[in-house]
Amino acid sequence: MKKKAKVNASILIIGNEILSGRTQDTNTSTLATWLNSIGVRVAEVRVIPDDEVTIIETLNFLRSTYDYVFTTGGIGPTHDDITAQSVSKAFGIKYQIHKEAFKILEDYYEPGKFNDGRKKMAWMPENANLILNPTSGAPGFNVENVFSLPGVPSILKSMLGGLTNRIVGGEPIKSLTISLRTVESEIANSLTKVQNDNTDVEIGSYPFFHAGKLGVSIVIRSADQSKIDNCNSQILKFINEKKIEVVDR
Amino acid sequence: MKKKAKVNASILIIGNEILSGRTQDTNTSTLATWLNSIGVRVAEVRVIPDDEVTIIETLNFLRSTYDYVFTTGGIGPTHDDITAQSVSKAFGIKYQIHKEAFKILEDYYEPGKFNDGRKKMAWMPENANLILNPTSGAPGFNVENVFSLPGVPSILKSMLGGLTNRIVGGEPIKSLTISLRTVESEIANSLTKVQNDNTDVEIGSYPFFHAGKLGVSIVIRSADQSKIDNCNSQILKFINEKKIEVVDR
Repeated sequence: MKKKAKVNASILIIGNEILSGRTQDTNTSTLATWLNSIGVRVAEVRVIPDDEVTIIETLNFLRSTYDYVFTTGGIGPTHDDITAQSVSKAFGIKYQIHKEAFKILEDYYEPGKFNDGRKKMAWMPENANLILNPTSGAPGFNVENVFSLPGVPSILKSMLGGLTNRIVGGEPIKSLTISLRTVESEIANSLTKVQNDNTDVEIGSYPFFHAGKLGVSIVIRSADQSKIDNCNSQILKFINEKKIEVVDR
Repeated sequence: MKKKAKVNASILIIGNEILSGRTQDTNTSTLATWLNSIGVRVAEVRVIPDDEVTIIETLNFLRSTYDYVFTTGGIGPTHDDITAQSVSKAFGIKYQIHKEAFKILEDYYEPGKFNDGRKKMAWMPENANLILNPTSGAPGFNVENVFSLPGVPSILKSMLGGLTNRIVGGEPIKSLTISLRTVESEIANSLTKVQNDNTDVEIGSYPFFHAGKLGVSIVIRSADQSKIDNCNSQILKFINEKKIEVVDR
C-alpha cells in the first residue's frame, strides 16, 4: 500500500459475550491506541455476534470501505470460534489446514497434547499470512487488508508488536490534552469559537470526575503540531481571561 | 409495541474519544446487561465519530433494522455534542428548544447560572419524550424507538431505572455459567456435540486466567430454563467423564 496522508481502519469485535454484557471489551482501546501511534485512525467499530452470515457481510463492507480491518475474537478451538471460516468465505478462498500454522502448533504443544481442538486452530484461509503469537502459540492471520486477532486481551496485546511493520500508516496523529477545573458549560462558547477558527483540527471536550472534583479535559488532535500549538494558545488565552485553573489529570 | 417473543436492540456509541482509544467504553456492557434483564437482546453495537452525516446515516439504518436503538454520547453543552441535532435530522423533525427540558434545566441551576452552554442542552427534536436525569439535571430524549443517553457512565446508569417501563421486552434471556479448571481444546469436541444437539440454545466458551490459573467458562443462554437445564446436564456428564474440576469464578 502506498503511503497516504490519512490512513483509516475499522475494528470488528466478534463475540456474543460482548453483546450480552458479560464481557467488557477492552481490545478497541488497545487497538485504537496502537493504531494511532502508527498513524492510523480508527473510523468505526462494530460489535457483532458469532454468526457466519453477519460476519461475512459485515467484513465485506468494512474491508471495501476502510484501509485496514482488524477483527478480534473467534479464532480459538471451540464450536463458537468461526472467524477463520467466515473470513475464508468472505474472500471466497479455501478454508483448510495451514501448514505453517500446523507446524507452529505441533511444536508448541507437548507430544501427545496436540489434539483435535488444537488442530482446529490451524484451519485458516489458504495462504493467509500468519500473525505470530508469543503468548499462547496459536497464530492469528492476515488476508489482504484484514487482520484477525484473538479476543483474549493479553494475547492480542502481545501480538501487536510483530504487526507494526506490516501496517503502512499515514502521518502520526498527535494530541494534546488540557485539563481544567471547570464545567463544560463555562467554556462551551469560547471553545466553539476556537473550533470554528480551526476546522481542520479535532477538538473534543470531556467532563471528568476525579479525586472528588469535577473537571473538563479538552483534547486537541491533528497530524500537524503547529496547528495543535495554535489551538492551545487560543484556548489558554480564554482560560486565563476566565481565570480557570489548569490541573493535572 | 406489541409483546414479541424476541426483541432486539442496537447500541450506537457516538464519540471520537472512544475511537481514538483515549476513553474506554463501558456503556455497552451497562446497557447490554440492563437490556438482557428486561428481555431485550443486543444484536449489534457501532462506535462512530462525532460527524453529523455519519450519525444520521447510521441511525437511520439501525432504527429501521432493530426494535430499539440506544445512543450514548454527544448530548452535552459543547460544540462536539451534536447528537440532538443529528437525531432531529435523521427523523426529519424540527430541532428546537424543548419547553419541558428548558424548565427542568432552569430549575436545576442556581439563579444566574443557566448560561448559553446549558441552554443548548434544552435543544432537542420537537416533541421528544424526555428521559429524566437524576444525577446532573440535563435530560436525555426519546423519539419513536430511539433513546438518546449521555456518554458519562455514572449519569447514563442513573437514567436507566426511569426507562424500564418504556421498553417492551420479550421473554427474559436466562443464562447459566459453568466454570472449569481446564483448557478449551480439552472440551471442544464434547461441547460441539452438545451445541449440535441443542441448536436453539446459545453456548459460548470463554477462556479465563484468574488467581494465577487457567480455566474456561461455559455460558448457556436461552429464554427457556428447561433447555438450559438440559444442556447443563449434558455438559456435566462429559465433565464427569473427563474428570474435569468445576470451579467458582
